[in-house]
Amino acid sequence: MVTLRGGVALTLHEIEQLTRKVFSENGCDAANTEALVRTVVGAERDGCASHGLFRVPGYVSSLRSGKVNGKAFPQITRPASAVFRVDGDNGFAPLALERAIPALADGARSFGVAAAAIRRVYHYAALWPETEALAQEGLIGLACVSYLPVMAPYGGDQALFGTNPISFAWPRPGRSPVVIDMATAAMAQGEVQIAAREGRSVPSGTGLDRHGNPSTDPREILEGLLLPFGGHKGSALALMVELLAAGAVGDYFSFEAAEADNGDGGPPRGGEFLLAVSPELLAGSGYAEHCEAFFHRYEAIQGARLPGARRHANRLSDEPRIIDAELVERIRALVD
Amino acid sequence: MVTLRGGVALTLHEIEQLTRKVFSENGCDAANTEALVRTVVGAERDGCASHGLFRVPGYVSSLRSGKVNGKAFPQITRPASAVFRVDGDNGFAPLALERAIPALADGARSFGVAAAAIRRVYHYAALWPETEALAQEGLIGLACVSYLPVMAPYGGDQALFGTNPISFAWPRPGRSPVVIDMATAAMAQGEVQIAAREGRSVPSGTGLDRHGNPSTDPREILEGLLLPFGGHKGSALALMVELLAAGAVGDYFSFEAAEADNGDGGPPRGGEFLLAVSPELLAGSGYAEHCEAFFHRYEAIQGARLPGARRHANRLSDEPRIIDAELVERIRALVD
Repeated sequence: MVTLRGGVALTLHEIEQLTRKVFSENGCDAANTEALVRTVVGAERDGCASHGLFRVPGYVSSLRSGKVNGKAFPQITRPASAVFRVDGDNGFAPLALERAIPALADGARSFGVAAAAIRRVYHYAALWPETEALAQEGLIGLACVSYLPVMAPYGGDQALFGTNPISFAWPRPGRSPVVIDMATAAMAQGEVQIAAREGRSVPSGTGLDRHGNPSTDPREILEGLLLPFGGHKGSALALMVELLAAGAVGDYFSFEAAEADNGDGGPPRGGEFLLAVSPELLAGSGYAEHCEAFFHRYEAIQGARLPGARRHANRLSDEPRIIDAELVERIRALVD
Repeated sequence: MVTLRGGVALTLHEIEQLTRKVFSENGCDAANTEALVRTVVGAERDGCASHGLFRVPGYVSSLRSGKVNGKAFPQITRPASAVFRVDGDNGFAPLALERAIPALADGARSFGVAAAAIRRVYHYAALWPETEALAQEGLIGLACVSYLPVMAPYGGDQALFGTNPISFAWPRPGRSPVVIDMATAAMAQGEVQIAAREGRSVPSGTGLDRHGNPSTDPREILEGLLLPFGGHKGSALALMVELLAAGAVGDYFSFEAAEADNGDGGPPRGGEFLLAVSPELLAGSGYAEHCEAFFHRYEAIQGARLPGARRHANRLSDEPRIIDAELVERIRALVD
């Protein structure tokens, strides 16, 4: 472990050991601990700081407050042939997702398309782990979650939506998949929080202060509200996400999650919508070659980058990751 | 018929009679004619000028050039239980869609979710007719199409994407559904064309001229290229649409459609991706009441409007629609 300019260098193995110790000493059983460890380590491995160690204190707050069940045992039912309901037993989302994905993938391979409603879970992570897992199975993956009411619909000045991310992954046999994972907010809340912590300003259009005025100060925006990206179009997508993740799943809308939350600073309860489609069954067996011809054109355009490529490049590095020193100190204090 | 300031007032009945005469006298059989009439009249009824009579001269060009089969007989196959392939027989999309929707809706009601690949069709219309039809059946509808390469991926200056619209409809039993229908371009090409026709400028960020410089002149942009809405996020969605509408469907990418097109000014060949999900099966029977509580909150926010509401309000008017006089003259000239 080496300390650098406010950052601490930790290997992925050190991150794994630290998070395992934190979760297992704070009330998680082995299955839940390992699913969380994979989630946190995967985020740091890919350079996705806002979903890695940054979230560990919040996870622990919710274990200590008793809001989240660290020994959750997710169960799957099948109300129709191609739809799955996953009851997360009030646990964190990663274990429920890891159990849902093989069932969903089998469903999509049998029926051509399948959907899952993940319910009674607490979601705090990126969405690419689940859509990328489906793409690794040769399937198209789509996922979305709601959150807490932190963002106004376009034209309004009252928060109703979460940051409402959407993720989409496209399989490329023999290569890394194309993976989109984006908040429908102009900036994800985790990134606004990190900007606040680091004392940086954020681009105009990110949000409003608590008086409803535009601001570039992330601390003011965290007290006010976020705005959707791209005006009324981004707002329409945020609405779509809210309806899929809450309405179609049968779990809390963002406003309901806030009403039910105990304010422990950890993740709110919410649902996740997950869809898998077999391009092999829908388009036919030549689909992958057909798409490679398209990707070839895409990659020939100077300045255009395929979504997910930066994360996949980060993943290849076996160098230590540089983590905020104060964060590491806070996490170390969570174990005896 | 009354003429007003460059516009002509036509009743919906007059629009219906005019389009029926145009299509039936230009090579369409009765089934294709009626599907096109419903599409054009529905667009004008809802105040959606860029997908109504505006498209009729292009439809006719493609019938006269022999590119599109006016007597197409779409056929449906089912490569897996919950996926449908619809061969459009080289016709315009509306008839293939009208035949696909009942099969897709039955599939979603039986299996919980179903997808359709519409192939070998020529698409020139809005997407809301198909997603709204699914919502009227109590289902969530999602649709997307590619087009011709008119838009660059974010960061690039070469056109690869179509305007790549996406539509999403949410059922509200006993009320009008919520219906999103938006280009992932900053502005849909039909709207840029109408701005060019009317001599109006368009907002900055809409597109680049043929030298790659930003422009607000719609004529310059039509010679150059369009830009995605919302920067890299809108570009990622345009990529998702291209992959679903071409890769997952097994029909042309936008660049392939351009290579295959005969340049008659009508619609290019392309596929359409269509998804239906049963919220009743996924979320359970209380889903509609749960969502109404959310819509109640949404509609209480001053300045926030539900997508589709303006179209549904326009629909209620039985007043004549005001149509560009020069366009009506051009359409009348298409019949003997």
